[in-house]
Amino acid sequence: MPDNSDAGKFIRAESAQVPVTRLEPKVRQGLVLVITGHGKGKTTTALGLALRACGHGLRICLIQFMKGDLYAGEWDGVKKMACSMELIATGKGFCGIQGNPYPYQEHRANAQEAIKLAREKLASGQVDLLILDEINNALHLKLVDLEQVLQLIRTKPPLTHLVLTGRDAAPEVMELADTVSEIREIKHAYRQGIEPQPGIDY
Amino acid sequence: MPDNSDAGKFIRAESAQVPVTRLEPKVRQGLVLVITGHGKGKTTTALGLALRACGHGLRICLIQFMKGDLYAGEWDGVKKMACSMELIATGKGFCGIQGNPYPYQEHRANAQEAIKLAREKLASGQVDLLILDEINNALHLKLVDLEQVLQLIRTKPPLTHLVLTGRDAAPEVMELADTVSEIREIKHAYRQGIEPQPGIDY
Repeated sequence: MPDNSDAGKFIRAESAQVPVTRLEPKVRQGLVLVITGHGKGKTTTALGLALRACGHGLRICLIQFMKGDLYAGEWDGVKKMACSMELIATGKGFCGIQGNPYPYQEHRANAQEAIKLAREKLASGQVDLLILDEINNALHLKLVDLEQVLQLIRTKPPLTHLVLTGRDAAPEVMELADTVSEIREIKHAYRQGIEPQPGIDY
Repeated sequence: MPDNSDAGKFIRAESAQVPVTRLEPKVRQGLVLVITGHGKGKTTTALGLALRACGHGLRICLIQFMKGDLYAGEWDGVKKMACSMELIATGKGFCGIQGNPYPYQEHRANAQEAIKLAREKLASGQVDLLILDEINNALHLKLVDLEQVLQLIRTKPPLTHLVLTGRDAAPEVMELADTVSEIREIKHAYRQGIEPQPGIDY
């Protein structure tokens, strides 16, 4: 556990000392969640799920498709969590984005490795929450195949939660999901010329 | 720091050993983010921002408006973070929701305490990221006043990030924000009769 000087704290305000209800489902079920849309918050939602699941003692694995060439705070954030949690970056950056020097075939090879890894993690029985970050986008860009993604969903252990993030989620994937959220961009700071800020944007 | 047996790990896949770019903005700026909409993921996004900000060593305070009568995994999750992070629950549950036994005036008194706390945290200079969870909803329910929320935004220190979550965000609040995401519900497990699951829904 973290030492006290630098550990997160949970506090209930003086005025909020009310009885606390603890839910406990009669039936436990591993959910399939899809977080899609073009607004800010998809990977961020997945990280928040990890933090919440950590509180319940779940074992978490987050596989980042495509990402891997741009530092993000969560790479260090996970190291500061006293949880069974792995974040694995498998990519060489966003395929087809201006400035990315790697050819399609290399991106595809990496994404195929990531699919294999996801399959192994599901089969291991050692993961309660598997997050596949940007897999929707990877599918849209044909770095992975629809059947591969559907097969992951269909063959996951019944109690394992599976989260698939990324824009342009396939209708067939959403069809198999229990919960689907679409994050719409109403406004984004970068459109006003504000640079990405550490801790918020990366 | 957490001991190794139970600490989060960041791993770069074998096939993804590429040079990593570290962004660094020329101009640092504290952003105002609004996360609204009726879909799943608003508080979760805020928690994810906290995890990311923790990686950058930011000092984080998350004030939960209204929440306080229902256990959520993040209450324990934050204790497992080796970060300067506080999560403060200030509420007695959702005002007006069936089964909540507390009258409007009590909910309002609690929300007013939470506003005061937010003001103090901003004025302290000790917080780099202040998250006001469900404040949009609290405003919509008239537990806090529009002018109080606008004043928090207008008077925040320039480098402090301020995040306001909750459904039904006021147009005047969105107007002052740099980034606004709306989370739309496409599907939600509970509509199929699936009970809330620990680590995902609470």
